[in-house]
Amino acid sequence: MTENTVKTALTPATHTTPPAKFSHGVKKGNILQVAGQVGFLPAEEGKAPTPAGPTLREQTLQTFANVKAILEEGGATWDDVMMMRVYLTDVDHFAEMNEIYNAYFEEQGLKAPASARTTVYVGLPKGLLIEIDALAVLG
Amino acid sequence: MTENTVKTALTPATHTTPPAKFSHGVKKGNILQVAGQVGFLPAEEGKAPTPAGPTLREQTLQTFANVKAILEEGGATWDDVMMMRVYLTDVDHFAEMNEIYNAYFEEQGLKAPASARTTVYVGLPKGLLIEIDALAVLG
Amino acid sequence: MTENTVKTALTPATHTTPPAKFSHGVKKGNILQVAGQVGFLPAEEGKAPTPAGPTLREQTLQTFANVKAILEEGGATWDDVMMMRVYLTDVDHFAEMNEIYNAYFEEQGLKAPASARTTVYVGLPKGLLIEIDALAVLG
Repeated sequence: MTENTVKTALTPATHTTPPAKFSHGVKKGNILQVAGQVGFLPAEEGKAPTPAGPTLREQTLQTFANVKAILEEGGATWDDVMMMRVYLTDVDHFAEMNEIYNAYFEEQGLKAPASARTTVYVGLPKGLLIEIDALAVLG
Repeated sequence: MTENTVKTALTPATHTTPPAKFSHGVKKGNILQVAGQVGFLPAEEGKAPTPAGPTLREQTLQTFANVKAILEEGGATWDDVMMMRVYLTDVDHFAEMNEIYNAYFEEQGLKAPASARTTVYVGLPKGLLIEIDALAVLG
Repeated sequence: MTENTVKTALTPATHTTPPAKFSHGVKKGNILQVAGQVGFLPAEEGKAPTPAGPTLREQTLQTFANVKAILEEGGATWDDVMMMRVYLTDVDHFAEMNEIYNAYFEEQGLKAPASARTTVYVGLPKGLLIEIDALAVLG
């Protein structure tokens, strides 16, 4: 086994502890997987995980930041992302989420083609409006 | 970086423009990811995306066609697909979807073992009964 | 094409026949994908697939066993798993599932970092409380 095929956990210092024994992200060889991220603000010791504000905009932008921190921890960028899975709780949030999504990725200045994406509407724990995970392939 | 590790967008000419800045499919190295496809008929200029008929059968077959077009755009076939995620809106559609699924893949004349699959029941935008995405590994 | 890039189906002898033409697992090169597994007990000839007990605990542990059998069929272990997708039907099951999850993986004695994970709440066929699929990268 070469160093390339070791599986490493990606755990940004800002992230709250996962609610179970899973990793926020893992990398093995050229594959990087980001676990489902929600809009939790950076962890504060002794404080329960708290979502960024009540609005879809605040939660979505914080979720993007949380995904990005894991990508960066693994030496990847948004350009390496192949697939994003977006989980919303309400079909009526689709248009607003897309607007936030487009503006965010325009700001990020992607150099590679945009990731693929699937958006579906599911249940999430109380107070959470969006969850996103991502699969990246490093170059 | 070799040509193999460039990330390319897969955008069949027949496809409607995605509702946000994501790609219908992306390929990087030997990994090909197809975004969530629905049963939209081939794009017509100046016309909003329109699902194929109101029935599960019509939408499912059009969704398969839409996934297949993206695979082909990336030089892949159904035989390269490792995983399909099928999103239905109604548990009562499971048996009928499986019947359509089986007949379709029998017709496709697969040479390799069938893909893995997960089917779950979620919300989708009004009028849509099925959404499918796919992960392929090229040979 | 080398032997490494042949796609093979992973079909543990204990598993019930899938309800459609998909594989319980597939492996190609170093990528192994496990299809959505539920808590069905080992197959018995002439008997319809039957979930392990009515409780979340029984179904979850059987689901883990079913995922693990597919990993092993492909020469992989839990340590190779990059991503697990957990589908629950009820947000109120989250804490209990996490407790079962943690105890199970502690018992498994993982040597590599824990997999990433996404948990969402969806509809499942009647009687099923949990479904799990997994993506593994072999070392």
